[in-house]
Parts: sequence; structure tokens; C-alpha cells
Amino acid sequence: MKFIGENFLLRNRTAQRLYRRFADPEPILDFHCHLSPKDIAENRQFANLAEIWLEGDHYKWRAMRANGIAEEFCTGAAAPYDKFRAWAATVPQTLRNPLFHWTHLELQRYFSLKELLNEKSAARIWKKSNELLGRPDFSARGLLKKFNVTTVCTTDDPVDDLAHHEKIAADDFGTRVYPTFRPDKALALHEPAPFNAWVGRVEQAAGMDIGNLENFVSALRKRHDYFHAHGCRLSDHGLNECPGSTCPDRKAAVIFSKARRGKGVSPEERASFAAFLMLHFGRWDAEKGWVKQLHLGALRNPNTRRLAQLGPDTGLDCIGDFPQAQALARYLDLLEREGSLPKMIVYNNNPVDSYAFAAVLGSFQDGAMVGKMQFGAAWWFLDQQDGIQWQLNALSNLGLLSRFVGMVTDSRSFMSFPRHEYFRRVLCNLIGEEVERGELPHDEALLGTLIRNISYHNARAFLSLPESARKQTAARRPSL
Amino acid sequence: MKFIGENFLLRNRTAQRLYRRFADPEPILDFHCHLSPKDIAENRQFANLAEIWLEGDHYKWRAMRANGIAEEFCTGAAAPYDKFRAWAATVPQTLRNPLFHWTHLELQRYFSLKELLNEKSAARIWKKSNELLGRPDFSARGLLKKFNVTTVCTTDDPVDDLAHHEKIAADDFGTRVYPTFRPDKALALHEPAPFNAWVGRVEQAAGMDIGNLENFVSALRKRHDYFHAHGCRLSDHGLNECPGSTCPDRKAAVIFSKARRGKGVSPEERASFAAFLMLHFGRWDAEKGWVKQLHLGALRNPNTRRLAQLGPDTGLDCIGDFPQAQALARYLDLLEREGSLPKMIVYNNNPVDSYAFAAVLGSFQDGAMVGKMQFGAAWWFLDQQDGIQWQLNALSNLGLLSRFVGMVTDSRSFMSFPRHEYFRRVLCNLIGEEVERGELPHDEALLGTLIRNISYHNARAFLSLPESARKQTAARRPSL
Amino acid sequence: MKFIGENFLLRNRTAQRLYRRFADPEPILDFHCHLSPKDIAENRQFANLAEIWLEGDHYKWRAMRANGIAEEFCTGAAAPYDKFRAWAATVPQTLRNPLFHWTHLELQRYFSLKELLNEKSAARIWKKSNELLGRPDFSARGLLKKFNVTTVCTTDDPVDDLAHHEKIAADDFGTRVYPTFRPDKALALHEPAPFNAWVGRVEQAAGMDIGNLENFVSALRKRHDYFHAHGCRLSDHGLNECPGSTCPDRKAAVIFSKARRGKGVSPEERASFAAFLMLHFGRWDAEKGWVKQLHLGALRNPNTRRLAQLGPDTGLDCIGDFPQAQALARYLDLLEREGSLPKMIVYNNNPVDSYAFAAVLGSFQDGAMVGKMQFGAAWWFLDQQDGIQWQLNALSNLGLLSRFVGMVTDSRSFMSFPRHEYFRRVLCNLIGEEVERGELPHDEALLGTLIRNISYHNARAFLSLPESARKQTAARRPSL
Repeated sequence: MKFIGENFLLRNRTAQRLYRRFADPEPILDFHCHLSPKDIAENRQFANLAEIWLEGDHYKWRAMRANGIAEEFCTGAAAPYDKFRAWAATVPQTLRNPLFHWTHLELQRYFSLKELLNEKSAARIWKKSNELLGRPDFSARGLLKKFNVTTVCTTDDPVDDLAHHEKIAADDFGTRVYPTFRPDKALALHEPAPFNAWVGRVEQAAGMDIGNLENFVSALRKRHDYFHAHGCRLSDHGLNECPGSTCPDRKAAVIFSKARRGKGVSPEERASFAAFLMLHFGRWDAEKGWVKQLHLGALRNPNTRRLAQLGPDTGLDCIGDFPQAQALARYLDLLEREGSLPKMIVYNNNPVDSYAFAAVLGSFQDGAMVGKMQFGAAWWFLDQQDGIQWQLNALSNLGLLSRFVGMVTDSRSFMSFPRHEYFRRVLCNLIGEEVERGELPHDEALLGTLIRNISYHNARAFLSLPESARKQTAARRPSL
Repeated sequence: MKFIGENFLLRNRTAQRLYRRFADPEPILDFHCHLSPKDIAENRQFANLAEIWLEGDHYKWRAMRANGIAEEFCTGAAAPYDKFRAWAATVPQTLRNPLFHWTHLELQRYFSLKELLNEKSAARIWKKSNELLGRPDFSARGLLKKFNVTTVCTTDDPVDDLAHHEKIAADDFGTRVYPTFRPDKALALHEPAPFNAWVGRVEQAAGMDIGNLENFVSALRKRHDYFHAHGCRLSDHGLNECPGSTCPDRKAAVIFSKARRGKGVSPEERASFAAFLMLHFGRWDAEKGWVKQLHLGALRNPNTRRLAQLGPDTGLDCIGDFPQAQALARYLDLLEREGSLPKMIVYNNNPVDSYAFAAVLGSFQDGAMVGKMQFGAAWWFLDQQDGIQWQLNALSNLGLLSRFVGMVTDSRSFMSFPRHEYFRRVLCNLIGEEVERGELPHDEALLGTLIRNISYHNARAFLSLPESARKQTAARRPSL
Repeated sequence: MKFIGENFLLRNRTAQRLYRRFADPEPILDFHCHLSPKDIAENRQFANLAEIWLEGDHYKWRAMRANGIAEEFCTGAAAPYDKFRAWAATVPQTLRNPLFHWTHLELQRYFSLKELLNEKSAARIWKKSNELLGRPDFSARGLLKKFNVTTVCTTDDPVDDLAHHEKIAADDFGTRVYPTFRPDKALALHEPAPFNAWVGRVEQAAGMDIGNLENFVSALRKRHDYFHAHGCRLSDHGLNECPGSTCPDRKAAVIFSKARRGKGVSPEERASFAAFLMLHFGRWDAEKGWVKQLHLGALRNPNTRRLAQLGPDTGLDCIGDFPQAQALARYLDLLEREGSLPKMIVYNNNPVDSYAFAAVLGSFQDGAMVGKMQFGAAWWFLDQQDGIQWQLNALSNLGLLSRFVGMVTDSRSFMSFPRHEYFRRVLCNLIGEEVERGELPHDEALLGTLIRNISYHNARAFLSLPESARKQTAARRPSL
């Protein structure tokens, strides 16, 4: 069969029909990604394939390093074409890695290029794609339109002034773009110098001095309000482990004050402080009807020599194997006890956590709304055919697949939208297979609704995003 | 292919043939379930489908809550038909959840209803099934007969007087029903009030005062004897984690005395006390030739607000991710060292424990009998096609599938017997697939024996249940 | 389909073609096994099938014990034919266990026997295979030749004088045989008596007194040099958990001195001492360009009564579920920080560690060479179709399958070479399936290169074994 043909990943007729009829026509709601608001605000035009494709792509850097490619061609100073060539030489070595599929799917969908990328084809593909990248419909906004992306939620630092988001909202160009409140740096007081620098930025953003923990919490709360006024309806946290303890205000104040005086804090203190703040964040999200996202289980920055050279998010992270279930359950319980459990989406980084996560979340479904606790789509190292199937199967077996809010790109790149297509094909294939085996009823109304909802409509209903992301005069407090 | 047709789950001809010839004709030996002995003793007739189907079914409650159904219609006070309707409205949302299969398989097998259950069909299905439920062959005993259940082992509190079991045994109505000794409450001294209330019931049941730990152990031992005299040959323990330490008698006595005086005990003390008692229980089981079951790895009652409202076993439990292998190995080793390791069946709640459990058990096979240490059937959250396959595959790869004691319903409901059918279909499908691929020999004698044994005969031989469950004059001490 | 026919495990035409064209013709490089150098040096001729097949095979013993076979017929004193008969009686009970495949594949490949082994066929098979075993081409060296094994790396104690290896190298009979440096006993100071006896042997081997830790390290280093001079290019470590901490020299010296005086050390001290030595071992390997192998995650000797009777490596080990990722990452990081990270192959015993291991290793790929950090082939309890697929899939999804160094037998038996065939069939089947689905391009040059490299050439390039394993006059220090 042809490589990445029209029935790619759709191994049976029912799947093919379901995909075409119900999945493919739905637009994209990419509610978690790392696209640059600046690029969208300025409608960036990409100079070449290296810029749009390799910049910031830590998946590719990892593959290149494993292939013996020097750092110069990954994160280093090599010329764009030389970087691209190094990548092209690596592609044939990525057989069976998701990069092999993504690469060729993206070349097809963006540039109608069906050739395999390798050293021989590199020059040709570089030339053809660069020509297209010069056209207006290949600008940041052009690509959002091309891929029928109605909505994007970026990932933002609480100190961000959201000026780019204001600009985007004012332009009203077709795709709605919302910020996401991601206060990871508020928990990072184990490194006092960058922490205090960041607290300085919070002071500025919130327009107030931060002399003690109470001020810090108030200032963060102000930023939360500010984000809400800019249409933000999601928070996000990247945590190795979910805090599962409580921390009295007084203890938290002492820890905070230590860090403010530039002193180191112990791992236990760091965890306690995270527990303290995460409860506040949870309450605020619940009050405002936001969705809280937890990304749990990465093991970040294990390679300290390289980290010192290259900085974070350069393809040096990995997967942890922390015990997670009890702590996650306790965190949810602490919020639930005080009636402050927000809508949540919890993502696992280690596939072994799927069943525990899906089951814990099921214990906090409250019957007050549909699918309040969501087991999130396959994330990061799991974002491939196997990982997507595992997530869909764990969710199906332990919860309600039909209520799933679906896929996100979680990507830094404007070239990643075909991952929604990839996900939908895998989903339709699973459904189709079971229909053809007599394990699901051949009821197109029923199945079609499920597929359409997971592709788009469940997320739309779940997130309750405001009609426009334009700054509102006051933060309304919607009912949960 | 038709939904749940005659070849449901049997995806190849060899599987279809093997199932029909070897699996389907075998009766059911349901050696672990939570059926009510009272219902069997009184030969309960069910008023309607809500009573027999929704009562006590925490799987359905979880699905309903995830579907936004209020608690009133789950565990609450709503009228039976309203509850049923709420469930019927949820069923179409359970696509790919085992509930979707179970629901329609049960409607077919009990009531010959082939319609999909949903809001539209709810009234019709309610009416038809209620008519049938009024007939004598749909009573508790009628259903046991209908499904060819030769043997049932219920799950019982050591304080139970087993009067219902006596009644059942005296009636000798066709299905033999045995009690199982499940002393979980003996370990629960972290909640002194209910613990002491329960110790009071032990005093009564054993006819002796419990002034100290020695008395407590004696009284429990008396109950163990009492259960044996009533035909009991299995014990069962529901434990998050298996105790893997030892606890000197003196320390255990101090902990017990603390709890008896209404004082709280620490988690460490609780674990020590469990280690102390579990050794005793193990010895008694070994002495009497019983089978000890360990259900390991649930995380119970994480949602404390709901627990306070609804009580335990209401669909609020989940899956833990405790380290298990070392503690399980130590517990088995402590018993093995003193020649007191009973026959065992160990069940895992988290699928990630499959390989470790199967391997640990393999290290304690002693060559003195066939399959002494059993890796138990897919349990609870794993009781679906994926989970059943994982268990069968882990057991096959690390042990002897051919010696497996097979499936149990583990259910509270008289509507669950088709899970044996479900399991057997999955088993035959796996075997058939591998035969057709040339990975197993096409030797029907060999394969048929394996299938028949797993379906029924292995469990029969392994359990050594007495011919009758009628009270015997003295507890005999059979050889292991 | 015929059982173990020519297309065994090759379920599609592309796989069949790829296997025949690219995998089957490649020779075998078995870089990790437990074959006896003595047997090769002396060109052992095996008296009968029991000797070559059952001796030391703990997989078979486990299966036999689970089947109720007394120890006498496993590790005990029964006559060879009686042992063989007991095994033959167990074989039909191993359906779906890898032993069932291995057994019949081995009977086919070694003796052209296509019959199923069971009690009936036992005598026939015994007779026929024993006849063949008497022929010169069934000697140890004959079998290495028969299976086209170009290279074998054995597993050796640092105190070994490698006399057998010298003899083998001097004979230059066609297969090159290299030692592997496996210093597990250097870490085992928690049992002072055997530890000190072993240190005595190190003194002798290194020709120096070991009065303190510094001497111990020097003596081990001397042995490392000695192994290098004998062509050794791999080290290996069997560890439940990877040490993830540091231990100051002074602390290590105190622990060592305690053990030398016959005193027990705490588990914490044992772990610290392991951390201390493992750093040294890592540095030496890096200096000499060796490959370091870590076998992580077994839980050894859980059954202490049996251990006392039978000793280690008798089929009593099992799988642990230790947290591994953080410690492994720290160990690699400590070496990487000082520029002393050697080439590595890390194997997991528990399948749940696959993703974490593959991801951690990916964070230490340095771009200086191809595939420096290797996620090792399915090991021990995972060495079957499922386990092989999991390893291949985890590696594919998180790293570069194309750079994989491939399969090893890890076996004590000269009857295990068909495991390479087994592995290659599984590999080709996966590739073929995806080609036929349009998930891999049908490009035989590309796929064939990948298959040939994984079958043989990647390992050859990675290991940098010297042309001859004959003792060299001085340890050269190759560049990494």
C-alpha cells in the first residue's frame, strides 16, 4: 500500500467512511499549545523551512543527537540550510519513530510534497517549500486559516502583559486566540536567583510590592483576574509529581521568606510550598469556571552539563516513574472537600500511569456536569500511534470516551496541525475495527456523533471560552 | 458484522469451533463473588430491572456520574424506573466501555432482548424484562440454574453466623454455595470506633471475651474453624499493599491495646498489625488446605466528601500505584520459610503489576502440586477485553496458562454470569488466532483440554471444596 | 497453518521477503551470554539432550515446578533421561509460554525434529537427538559454526584468569570469543563472608594485598586492564536498582573496612558503596572505549528457604518494581558531568520501565557518535514475542530503531541460538505489517539496511571489538 495514502491509518472501510464523513470536516480547536502569540500578532512570515520546522523542535534535536549529529546543527549556530540538511540526513534513520510520519505528513499537507525526505531530496524539498513559505497564505495566520483552526490557546507566563493577545483579538482575523495561565515559575523557589527575578516581574505586572507571601498570593491572583479579563479560561501546570500534602499558611510564609532572602529551600519545603500554592490556584480556577490542566510525570533536566550549555526545553527532558495516584487523588480531594474542585484535564507522561489516572479521575466525577474530570490526550513522548491508542483505550475502559475533549498539538510549531488529523485517523480506525468485528453497533448516527464530538464539540462545550478574547471590562464570575 | 452476534469476540474459525466445542458446554464455578447469601437462601424474586441490575452496581454509578447524572439517580432515592431511565440514557455514551458490552450481552442472555438500550428503547425493555423477572425461573436460584452455575463462593465477614449458608446447604437445590472468610475488618484498627464495634461482634460470634490480642487471635481462629465446618475453603483479603514486614507479638499487642482503648494508631502501626495478623491467617489457611486470595492495589475512598455522604463501595474507589513486588515476595517468603505457604490466588488492580506479580508467584511454585501459586483473573477495573488479554498473556509468558483456575464474576449481581462467557470467548479467540498463525499446534485434544480446564476443571481441582457445604461435625485437617 | 512452518511469525508477504533477503543471511554476534568458556575451550561434546538442554536452564525448572514436578527432576539428582522425561511431560502444559516455541524451534533447528515433544514422543526424540549430539559438528564449537556465530561475548568474574579465553583465542577456530567484565561481587559486601573470600581471590588475581579501599580499587582496575588486554570491550552489571547517589571516598572507605572486618553493613551503606564503585567502573569503561551494560530491575532470591537449598540462579528470581528513572538518570549524569559517560546498553526486567528507560537514554545521546546510549533487547522474563515487540516499539517511538544493536541470547545453553532467528522474525514481521498498511514506505534498500544493521552490523560497529581476542601486550587506550 502507498505510504501515507488517502487511507493512512484507516485500515478498514468503516473507519475510512467514518473519518471522511465525521472527523475530517470538523475544524480544529487547539486548546493547548506553545505557539508564539508574537508570531500570530505580527503574522510572521517564515524565511525558510528551517525556521518554521526546526526552530524549537526538541523532538528533532533528540533524534539528530541519537544519529550522531553535532549540536551545531541542532540548537547551534549552523546556517539554516545546513541544519535542514542534517535533519534530512537523519529522517531515513527515524523509521517507526513518529517523526517519520509527522515529517512526511507535514510535507504533504503543507507543500503537497510526496517525496521521502533524505539527503538526496533535501535540496529539492528545501527549494519548493521555501517558495511556498514566501506566500501570504503561508504566514502564521494564513496557516491557521488553511488548517481551519477556529481556536488556539497559547501557554503564557502570569507576568505576560498579553499585549500580543490584545493585538490578535483586536484584529479579529478569524482564529480566536486565548492565553493560558501557567504559573510554574511561582513554584520554582528552589533556585532563589531566578525565582526572585521572576517575583520582581510579578511585582511590576501586578503593580504592587511583594514583601511577604500574602502579597505574593494577592499579586498572582491579580494576574489570574487579568488573564480572565483577556479571555483566559485555562490554567496549566507542568509538574513531575502532583502535590499531595497540605501546608499551613505559616509554614508556607517561612519558606517563601527564606527564598526571598536568597536562601536555598529543601526538597520537602519546595513540595510543601507547591502544595500551598496549588490549592490557591485550584480555588481560583473553580471560582472562575476555568479548566485546570495538570501535565504530570516528566523528569526534567536530567543532563546537567548539557542543561548548563543549552538551557531548558532543548530535548534533554525525559520520563519519570514517580508514584502518582495517591498524591493526585489527595490534591483533588482537598479541593473537592471545600467545594473548589475545578474542571480538570490530567495528562500523563509515563504510559504506566494511564490506568491509575483514569481511575482516580473517575472517582471525582460529580454528576453535576458531563465529563468534568478529563483524562487528557496522549502527551509528548506518548504522542504517537501507540500512545494515542493507549490513552483512548484506558479512557474507554475506565470512563466515557464519548465525553472526551480530544486532541491538542502541544506544539511550538505552525507545522503541527496535522497531528489532529493523525489523532482522528487513529480514533476512527479503532472505532471502525470494532464495528467490523461486531464489537460496536453499526449505527452511524451514534458513532458519528461520538467522533464529531471528540474532534471538536466536546472541547468547545467543556472550555466555555468567551465569544471573543478581547479584553473585557471586568472579570465576570461564571457559575461552574 | 452484527453487534454481539453468535461469533462475538471470536474473530477466526478455529476460535469459533474451540469455543463451541470446549468452552461453552462447561458449567460455571464462580469461586469469588459478592452475591448475597440471603438472596439465595430466600430465593429472592426481583421486582424489576432496576432492582436486579442497578442495585449495588458501582460500575454503572461511575459511568452515570461521568455522564452528568445526579446522585439521586445513582445511589439516591429516585424511583426505580427513573433510575433505570437515567441509566438507559447513559448507555449510548458508554461506547467502548465494558458496560456497553455487558449491558447488551446481559439483555440478550437473560431476556433475549437484542435491541440497543437507550432513552427510546428504555420503556419497552423495562416492560419486557420485568415480565420475565416475575417468573420463577428468574428468581435467584432460577438464574443460578439457568446459567448452569454448579458452585458459588460468596464473600463473608468472620462474624457472620452463616445461617443463610446453612439454609442453602440444607435445601440442596442444585448449586452449591460456600462462604469465604474475609477478615478485612480485623486489620482496620486505624478507625477505633468501628473497629471496636466489630471486635464486639467477634466476641459474640466466638462466644468469648476479647481482653487482649491473644484472645483476639483465638477468637478469629475459632471463626476460621467455624467457617471450615461450613464448607469454607477460601479466604480473601482486599489490601492496598501486601504487608511485607514482620511484627513481634509484643509490638502487635501494644498496638491492639491502643486501638481497644479508642486511641488512634499510626500508619506504620497499622501496617505492622496487618503484617502480624496476615501471618496468622496464612498459617491457618495452610493448615486447613484453604486457598488464600489477595486482591492487591486498589486505592480506596479517595473522595472523602462523597465517602461521608454515600459510604464505601459506591463507585468512589480507584487504582493505586503502590510498589508491590518486594512486599508480596516477602509475605510469601515468611510463610514459605516456616512451611506455611497456602495455595494462593493473587489479583492485581493496576495493570502495571501483572508481570511483577506473575513472576513473584513463579518463584514460589514448589513442585509439590500443580499450579500452587495462581495469578488471578483480570479484576475490577481490568475486567474487560484488554485486561483479560493482559492477564492471560502475562500468565502465559511467565507461567503455565494451562494450569490457570480461570474466571470469577467478583460481582454483587445475579446478572453477571455472562462474564464467564465473555472471558471464555476472549480466551478461545487468543488460542484460535495463534493456531491460525502457526504459533500453536492445531491439536484439538491438547487445546480443548486446556480450554475445558481453564473454564471449569482447574478451579474444581484446585479448590478442593467439600462435596456438600452442609455443616460438618468437626473441622478436618486435610493435607496440603 | 502449520506449527512453526517456514513463515513462522512472519504474517505477511513483505515480512517473509524481508526476512529471507535481509535477516536470515546475517551471521550472529552474540555479545551478551552466559556460555561457559571452558566448554568452548575444551570443545565439549554433550552426552545427551538433558546435558545440553536442561543443565542450568532455570526457565524450564520454573515451568516444571509450576507443573508439580519435584525438585529431584529439576535441579536434583534424578537420572538424565528421567529429568528429560519430566520436562517432556511438562512441555504440553507450556502452551503460549515462550518455552513451547523455543523447545520446538530448537528441536527443528538442531535435530530436524518436527514432532511435538510430550511423554509419548520423549523416548524417540531422546534417541534421535542423542545420536546427533555424538557427532563432531554437535560439539560446542561445531554448534557455533553451524549457527554462523562469528562472535560470542561471555560473562566473567574479574578474578577469572581467562585461561579458557586464551586457549580459545590461540586456537582461532572461527568464532571469536571475548570476555565481559562483570564485577557484581565487588558490590556484595552485605554478606561479609563470601565478600571477603572473593576479595581474597582478587588479591591473588591482581597480585597485591588489599588492605584498604584504595588497594581494592587499584586491584579491580588491574583486572579491568587485564580483561582489556584479553580483548574485553564490555562490562556488565546486574542490579536491582541503579545507584543514583554519590558517596565520598572517605565514607566508602569506612564501609569497606567494616565489611572487611566481617561486620554487616546497612542497606543504605550497601547502596552508597555501590554508588562509589559504579562511578569508578563507569570511568574506566569510558577511558578504554568499552560498552557498559546495565541489567536493571530483577528482584533476586525472594524465596530464602529454596535459596538455601538450591543456591542462586536456580529459577527463583523474579521481577521487581523499583522506581528506576531518577536513579538511572543521576548515574548517567554524574558520569556525563565529568566527561566519563561510556557507551551504554541498558536492559529492563520489568516491562513497565521501557518508556522511562528509553527516554532517559535519549537525554544522554551526545551527537558525537551514532546511538551511543542503547536501550537493550528484551531481557529474561521479557524475552518472548510480546516483550520483543514492546522493546522494539518503545525504542522506535522514543529513539532510533535503525541504530539498535539488536538481540543477544543471554543464555547458558548452546541450544539458544535460534532466539536470534526468533527476534529477527518478530522484527521483520513488524516492519512488513507497517509496509503493507502504508505506514512505512516500500523501499527495500532503506528497510533492508535497517534489518541487516539491527541483525548484525550495528552491534559490530558499536562494540569496536579487536580483530582478535588474543592477549595483547598492552592495553591500548582507544578514543571514544
